[in-house]
Amino acid sequence: MDEKITSRENAKIKYACRLSSSAAFRRSEGRFLAEGRKLCPELCRGAELETLFYTASAAEKCPEILELPGEHFLVEDHVADKLADVGTHQGVFGVFRTPVHTLEEVHTGGRYLALERVQDPGNVGTLLRSAAAFGFDAVILSDGCASPFAPKTLRASMGAAVRVPVIEAGAMPAAIASLREQGITCLAAALYRSQPLSAAASSCPGGICVVIGSEGQGLTDETIAACNGTVRIPMTDRVESLNAGIAGSILLWHFREESL
Amino acid sequence: MDEKITSRENAKIKYACRLSSSAAFRRSEGRFLAEGRKLCPELCRGAELETLFYTASAAEKCPEILELPGEHFLVEDHVADKLADVGTHQGVFGVFRTPVHTLEEVHTGGRYLALERVQDPGNVGTLLRSAAAFGFDAVILSDGCASPFAPKTLRASMGAAVRVPVIEAGAMPAAIASLREQGITCLAAALYRSQPLSAAASSCPGGICVVIGSEGQGLTDETIAACNGTVRIPMTDRVESLNAGIAGSILLWHFREESL
Repeated sequence: MDEKITSRENAKIKYACRLSSSAAFRRSEGRFLAEGRKLCPELCRGAELETLFYTASAAEKCPEILELPGEHFLVEDHVADKLADVGTHQGVFGVFRTPVHTLEEVHTGGRYLALERVQDPGNVGTLLRSAAAFGFDAVILSDGCASPFAPKTLRASMGAAVRVPVIEAGAMPAAIASLREQGITCLAAALYRSQPLSAAASSCPGGICVVIGSEGQGLTDETIAACNGTVRIPMTDRVESLNAGIAGSILLWHFREESL
Repeated sequence: MDEKITSRENAKIKYACRLSSSAAFRRSEGRFLAEGRKLCPELCRGAELETLFYTASAAEKCPEILELPGEHFLVEDHVADKLADVGTHQGVFGVFRTPVHTLEEVHTGGRYLALERVQDPGNVGTLLRSAAAFGFDAVILSDGCASPFAPKTLRASMGAAVRVPVIEAGAMPAAIASLREQGITCLAAALYRSQPLSAAASSCPGGICVVIGSEGQGLTDETIAACNGTVRIPMTDRVESLNAGIAGSILLWHFREESL
């Protein structure tokens, strides 16, 4: 029988809540908190589960969560409510070790997605999921992107954040320069002075990196200048723009793994 | 100087609120309510604005809304709060005539999107926007889809609901049958026993209709049986599925207008 936590002031609970709310704390601790009966088992496929918190009703509806690794704690409902970042939750929470990846893993011939200041967690999560689906080797995030291990991003990515390496790289122009040193072609998604995607080759011998900017402002001039070229998704004049997650996913589909 | 509405019980305000909250009332009245400083002018490009409600601060920040057609009313802030379906709004609201389209407009050689029981307003709105972007001739909705003129769907579509004809068609198998009578090839998006999109032609001489099902259950067996064939987006095994709006938009991109 697992130990039961009855107080919202329990140190393990307070630690988990801080992981959920603070990107800086997640980074310094190298851990994150996730919630969900499907999401926690899914994350176990790519990250180490250290601590599992579950409610009695969650264990009853979904006994297989008790087979997950790590230290387990039964929590009372009011304690689970504190762990959740939103009102509705499924009573299953896990503290995971954050997989850490660096630009040194980037290699010639690879397939990469780079996001500059994409601030919406839904868009970052969706793009991580599409990158994993289409066989990308890693996703590179600049400063100012939504945190890949924040609760909202984890929900939108459905666990893809641990199925494709995520590299937090600081300033984007420097990251682009180091990719280009490996012979990787970096293509900026931009509306102006760009070639239509329908005219772009679907692969490059030295590898490809698709570079996408923020929902409002797009890419910075420095990042566009650092890339080999620009590409846009051609559209009719009936809309002004596409949603950033949609536009990015269409680019990822175009540059997908050859076997797909 | 426009007339000022100071009471939340004003008949015009109560009428607009009912349009916002009830799909049945929208249908019987042939009108809908939209909110937003960018969205209302955008909707004027494809629908008749009958009544505009605005707050004093909205008119100050965005005086061009006063150039819009229709009858105008200045409303006090607490009245605007009642018109809004969510807590944050921009103080600009319009009652529009709903454009009405029927299956009789469907023609040989056209490009169509059909949605069966897609319940999420964000997904319906996103797919309307992508269909307009990629030159589709109409979007066909079955019973059980999110209402295209509900506040959440309008926000996600960014006004595309009036830039691409929307046809509310009832049961999907009968709608598919009438498209096929016109020689239009109907392709069901399905995970199993389907050909990969990468192997599908990007156009069909008699026209094409992409058919997409609900987020949880996919298409009904009856609808799949009514179609000419099935298609799927090939993926690595690192994810279970794609978001419905993403998957649908990739299909729309594949079957886009030839000039794009």
